[in-house]
Amino acid sequence: MPEKILIVVCDGLGDRPVPGFGNKTPLQSAARPSLNHFARNGACGIIDIIAPGVRPGSDTAHLALFGHDPFKVYTGRGPFEAMGVGMEVRPGDVAFRCNFSTVSADMTILDRRAGRIRDGTVELARALDNWEFEGVKVYFKEGTEHRGVLLLRAPGLSPLVTDSDPHQEGVKPHECAPKAPEAALTARVVNAFVKRSYDILKDHPVNRTRVKAGELPANIVLPRGAGIMPHMPSFLERFGIKTAAIAGVALVKGICRVSGMDIIDVKGATGGLDTDMKAKTAAAVSALDKYDLVFVNIKAADLCGHDGDPKGKAAVVRRLDAAMAIVKKALPEGAFLALTADHSTPCCVKDHTGDPVPLAIYGKGVRADRVRTFDEIACARGGLGRLRGLDLLPILLDLAGRSEKFGA
Amino acid sequence: MPEKILIVVCDGLGDRPVPGFGNKTPLQSAARPSLNHFARNGACGIIDIIAPGVRPGSDTAHLALFGHDPFKVYTGRGPFEAMGVGMEVRPGDVAFRCNFSTVSADMTILDRRAGRIRDGTVELARALDNWEFEGVKVYFKEGTEHRGVLLLRAPGLSPLVTDSDPHQEGVKPHECAPKAPEAALTARVVNAFVKRSYDILKDHPVNRTRVKAGELPANIVLPRGAGIMPHMPSFLERFGIKTAAIAGVALVKGICRVSGMDIIDVKGATGGLDTDMKAKTAAAVSALDKYDLVFVNIKAADLCGHDGDPKGKAAVVRRLDAAMAIVKKALPEGAFLALTADHSTPCCVKDHTGDPVPLAIYGKGVRADRVRTFDEIACARGGLGRLRGLDLLPILLDLAGRSEKFGA
Repeated sequence: MPEKILIVVCDGLGDRPVPGFGNKTPLQSAARPSLNHFARNGACGIIDIIAPGVRPGSDTAHLALFGHDPFKVYTGRGPFEAMGVGMEVRPGDVAFRCNFSTVSADMTILDRRAGRIRDGTVELARALDNWEFEGVKVYFKEGTEHRGVLLLRAPGLSPLVTDSDPHQEGVKPHECAPKAPEAALTARVVNAFVKRSYDILKDHPVNRTRVKAGELPANIVLPRGAGIMPHMPSFLERFGIKTAAIAGVALVKGICRVSGMDIIDVKGATGGLDTDMKAKTAAAVSALDKYDLVFVNIKAADLCGHDGDPKGKAAVVRRLDAAMAIVKKALPEGAFLALTADHSTPCCVKDHTGDPVPLAIYGKGVRADRVRTFDEIACARGGLGRLRGLDLLPILLDLAGRSEKFGA
Repeated sequence: MPEKILIVVCDGLGDRPVPGFGNKTPLQSAARPSLNHFARNGACGIIDIIAPGVRPGSDTAHLALFGHDPFKVYTGRGPFEAMGVGMEVRPGDVAFRCNFSTVSADMTILDRRAGRIRDGTVELARALDNWEFEGVKVYFKEGTEHRGVLLLRAPGLSPLVTDSDPHQEGVKPHECAPKAPEAALTARVVNAFVKRSYDILKDHPVNRTRVKAGELPANIVLPRGAGIMPHMPSFLERFGIKTAAIAGVALVKGICRVSGMDIIDVKGATGGLDTDMKAKTAAAVSALDKYDLVFVNIKAADLCGHDGDPKGKAAVVRRLDAAMAIVKKALPEGAFLALTADHSTPCCVKDHTGDPVPLAIYGKGVRADRVRTFDEIACARGGLGRLRGLDLLPILLDLAGRSEKFGA
C-alpha cells in the first residue's frame, strides 16, 4: 500500500563549527532529543541541495527539493521575485524586477533608487496595479524599499526583451526592445507601462509630500531582468499524488503553489522568529489524513543565520525540537519523514552557503545506520552518504511505494 | 571577507595496498605528521577526478580540477600533446600528434616510426618549425622518440580534417581532407606541411648519417588526431580571482597557462624526483600575498608509481610531508588549503588508474570530521564523502566566500 510522506525543511539550519561554542555548530550545541530520535532510528546523510559548493537561493533550493532541476527551470529571477513579494504567478507569466526611480522633466534619470524610498510604496504600487494593455493583464507590486515587481499575463508572451533600466544615472530610460520577433508585444506593454508609471506617479500625493520634504520623488518605474514562469508539471501530474504545503514565507509559498501544492494556512505561522512551530508541525501531521505528501518549511533558523546569531539559532533548534516532538508522537503508522534543510546559513557568513545540509529519513523499513544525533557532522557518516537535492523526492516516493519501475 | 585558497596536488599520489608493505599503500606506510595534521583538523573525503573508474590523464585531471569539464573541452589530444612538449598553445590553435616516418622515393611508407629514432629529432624538428603558409603560422616540435607535434595558428582554423597518417605501412600517406567546408584551409596547410617535411628532411644531415649507419631515415612527418584548443574562460573571467600556478611538468604548466593562471618559476622545481619540494610549497605560500588562489603540482610520487617503486614512493611521501610542514607553519590566517592528488598511479599497475584520491580541506569553519590520517583508506570515511574533481573548485570558492548565490 502506498504510504504517506512528510518533508520537514528547517530553513537555513546548516551551519559551520562556531569557535565560541566549543567548535560545535548551533545545531550540535542544542539539546534536541526529538531530532536525534529521527536520526538514531532513521537513515542519515548529507545533501548538496543544488550541487557541491553551489550556494542555493530559497527559490532554487525548493525547486530542487520538489524535483525540478533549477539549472533547467530557473531562467530568470523575475517570476521568483514576484512570488517573493506575494504575487500569484502562473506558467507563461512574464515578470520583471523593477526599481522605483527618479527622473527629471526631460526624462533624465537622477536616482535609480528614488532616494532609497521606504514609505509610501504600497500606495504608489497600488496606483499602477491591475491594468490592461493590448489584451495583456498588467500587475505591479512593491517589494522592499525602492524595489517592485511587474508581472504580465497573456497567452504567448516572451521574456526576450531588453531592460528599460539603463543601469546608470544621468541618461534616459532605455526603450524596451524585443530580442526576437515573438517578443514584440511584451516590449510594447513594458514601454507603455513605463510611460504610464511616470504619468501616474509624477503628481501622486506620496511624491508631492516627498518633494515638499526635500526628498526625491519616486516618479517612474524601470523594469529589468525579464523572466518567464516555466510550466512545471504538478506532483499530481508527475506522480499522481495529492500534496500540501505549510510555509510562512511568500517566495517559498509561491514555489509550492506553482508546483501544484495546496497551501495550508496555519494560525500563528508567520515565517518569522515568532512563528508557531508546533502549530505548523501539528497541522502538517493532520494534513496527512487528506494528502499523500505534506511539506513544511520552518524559517526561523535561517533568520538567526543571517543575523550572525549562533545563540539565537541554538534556541531556535530547541523550539524546532519541541515541534518535532509532535511529529514523533503523531506521525501516522507507516508514514515516512524526511527531516532536512534547504541550505546552510552559517552565522559566521550571515548568508546562504554551499555547505551540505543534514538529512534523516525515518519510517518503516528504512535502513537505520549508526548515526546517533541529527547534525551536520554526524549525518555525514550516515548510510545515505552524500546526495543531491534532486535525489530526495525519488528516494521518498520509492520508500513510500509510490514510484514506477524503470524497465521490466 | 573573501579568503585565499591554496591547492596542493601530489601528482599520482593515490595507490593500492602493497602486500610487501603489510598491505598498506605507500602513503599509509610513510611517517607523515604534517599531512595528517591537515586531515585531522580538516574535512576529508575521496575524489573521482573525472568519474568513478575513469583513468585520468594528467591533462584531463587538471582540466577537471580547474573546473573545466574534460568531457566538453577535451576534444582532441593534439593541443594537449603540444603543451606536453612545451609548446605555447592558444585558444583556436589546431594541433596534431605526429610521427617521424620513413618513406621510399615513390612515397610508400616503409616504417611509421622511422626505425624508432631516438637521436637527432631536435635538429629535424627545428628544420620544420616556424613556417608560414597562406597566412597560417606553422610550428613543429619533437616529442619523445619518433613523436612530434604540429601546431597551426590563424583565425578561423577548423580541426575537422582527416589524418595524413594512414595507420599502416606499405601504402602512401593519405591526402589530408576537410570533413567540412570550413576546414579546407587547415587541410591545405597540413598537406603543404607534409610535402615540405619530405623536401627538407630527405637530405637532412641527421638522415644522411642514419642512412650511412644502416638506419631508416626520418624523412617525412605524418600528422593525425587533429584537435582545437577550446576557449576556456580564465579564473578571472569566471570568478574574478587572480591565480598562479607552480608546476614542473610542461603539460601541467600548459593547462595552467590556458586556464589563465600566472606561472611562477621556482628555482629547483624540476618536475623530476630531484625537485625541491620545500621551495615549491614555500613559494606557493608566499604567492598567496599577491594571488587569490595558488595551485601547486608536485610530480615525484607519480614517477615512482610509473616505475613500480613503492619504497621510492614512500620516501617521496616523507619529503612531501616535510614540504607540507612549511604550509602548516606559514599558511596565512583565514586561508583554505585543499590537499589532494590528480589521480592514482599504483605501483602494481605502473600507470594511472581510476582509483579515487584522498582529499583534505583545511581552514577556518571547515566541518572537521573524525579522520585522523591522510591516506586513501581513512579519507574515504571522511565528512566530505565521495566527490568529483569538478566539485572541488566550487567547494573551495564557497568556503572562501568567493561564490555567487544561485537564486535569491
